[in-house]
Amino acid sequence: MTKHIYIYSPSSAIRDKAAFRRGVKRLQALGHEVEIDPDALSVHQRFAGDDATRLAAISRAAASGANIALIARGGYGLTRILDQIPYKAVAKAIQKGTEFVGCSDFTALQNALVAKTGAVTWSGPAVGEDFGAEAGADDIMEACFDDLVSGQGEGTGWRMPARDADLKFKPVEDAVLWGGNLCVLTSLLGTPYFPVVDKGVLFIEDTNEHPYRIERMLDQLKMAGVLGKQKAIVFGQFTGIRKVPGYDRGFGLDTVVDRLRASLKKVPVLTGLPFGHVPTKVLLPVGAKVAMAAEGRDVFLVWGHRHAHSHDHDHAHSH
Amino acid sequence: MTKHIYIYSPSSAIRDKAAFRRGVKRLQALGHEVEIDPDALSVHQRFAGDDATRLAAISRAAASGANIALIARGGYGLTRILDQIPYKAVAKAIQKGTEFVGCSDFTALQNALVAKTGAVTWSGPAVGEDFGAEAGADDIMEACFDDLVSGQGEGTGWRMPARDADLKFKPVEDAVLWGGNLCVLTSLLGTPYFPVVDKGVLFIEDTNEHPYRIERMLDQLKMAGVLGKQKAIVFGQFTGIRKVPGYDRGFGLDTVVDRLRASLKKVPVLTGLPFGHVPTKVLLPVGAKVAMAAEGRDVFLVWGHRHAHSHDHDHAHSH
Repeated sequence: MTKHIYIYSPSSAIRDKAAFRRGVKRLQALGHEVEIDPDALSVHQRFAGDDATRLAAISRAAASGANIALIARGGYGLTRILDQIPYKAVAKAIQKGTEFVGCSDFTALQNALVAKTGAVTWSGPAVGEDFGAEAGADDIMEACFDDLVSGQGEGTGWRMPARDADLKFKPVEDAVLWGGNLCVLTSLLGTPYFPVVDKGVLFIEDTNEHPYRIERMLDQLKMAGVLGKQKAIVFGQFTGIRKVPGYDRGFGLDTVVDRLRASLKKVPVLTGLPFGHVPTKVLLPVGAKVAMAAEGRDVFLVWGHRHAHSHDHDHAHSH
Repeated sequence: MTKHIYIYSPSSAIRDKAAFRRGVKRLQALGHEVEIDPDALSVHQRFAGDDATRLAAISRAAASGANIALIARGGYGLTRILDQIPYKAVAKAIQKGTEFVGCSDFTALQNALVAKTGAVTWSGPAVGEDFGAEAGADDIMEACFDDLVSGQGEGTGWRMPARDADLKFKPVEDAVLWGGNLCVLTSLLGTPYFPVVDKGVLFIEDTNEHPYRIERMLDQLKMAGVLGKQKAIVFGQFTGIRKVPGYDRGFGLDTVVDRLRASLKKVPVLTGLPFGHVPTKVLLPVGAKVAMAAEGRDVFLVWGHRHAHSHDHDHAHSH
């Protein structure tokens, strides 16, 4: 099913052009019509063009009429323009059927969009790191992406690690899914771009952080009253953990999770979600209502059928 | 002038015991009576004892009746116990004449104390890193410390870097001085431990951070409405900047400062304050009213005479 995919760069400059080209080719090989934003490869300092350039790219993505607006890569660049993002234009594009997909720094736009409009975007792959991965694009990621583009996906699932085999939680219903990169999400706290989500399901991931920094961010969210009012917290993948041998002395991510569980008490803390700075990542609808339950170690996260609008729109493109 | 100095460990475990011993000896050589908290050298994971142990140490420091309660070292440990710190006991001890001195992670306690009680503490040295520095304690730091213990200090000053030679600002009066480590301060935002200071002078420093992370924290404080309502922002020392050559392409701390100035417009952004993770650090009263003005590149920060209480108290100890 051919889809129109619009690729743009809202954050860091693309340094690995080979990976970007591989990603574009892979999307074309999957049968899609790929449109590349004129500033996708722009460079200004560490950014993919200056702020005005990247804001214009976001506007073009919103105006593209594409089925999917996909970020070229993450990095850094969105938090500094949060007060200028065309939220209404993006929300209107989403209503008309364009699905916005991205991760990492994109967390800022996604959660700010929930705060400002309630519109749903997808935490998922980027062109370079994922579709252009040197080892080839991950099968599960591509299957989840295909679920989105075909309009067939209604949820996802994963097996919790053995360590959490005994975790029990009351099934969650009618909860807003939100979150993404922990560091980027936390950097919205206290600003008008941090969404007010009560009784939601908050998922988090991060990369290259010390366990103590992960704990400090979680404590900030907890003391700000955010964590205690969620129905569940879901840990994705925390990669490149910067533990200092002989210094941290047993203080690691497991310690952080255990302490969080002890202090939150009533809010279940799940682990093992296949999302983060890893090849195998599922797609997750940020801002959507979800249900979540487990059978033993197997967790099911369901958002049901979405996007009546996008189906009409899809047909217009795919016939 | 002999003073009673109480040394305790509210944050990370002391790993460099030699530096700690050198620091204690140096304080004794300066003529002070040094009392070491029984858990100053305790270790639990990466902390100087578990949370209860460190909370008890803070309480003992508050009950010590010392002239100075000085942290053994910074690191990490205070943000996770912000909801349990005996703020009233610390404020009462300060009222009775004990001056609390520290830096880095201590920023959390200092600013939370302003939020909860308005009590004044001192950003300044730690035992190990500063008094126990292998190269010997820094002269200026010791002179500033002596100003505090002798009750003679009424302010400090520094020369702004050549880059900011043309910076002009309206003299500041009657402003609350606050701040410290940028990362620790930002980790309080959104919680009840972040002080509400309007028309203050906010000083910041940090170590081992990428410029983009410094910018992201400043943007968070700005978008939370904190920076725009200050009378001035003062940059201390930012050490160990983790710039990535060939990647950041001219995006460095200067870029961050220039952009902040452009966006804040009415709030002057000063630089060069000798405070941070550096040997030469002045002592700064967090929570105190200050005045600030410049003559050319020379900045004067004045808090006037403080601590009538502590003088009586000092005499009780020094005679």
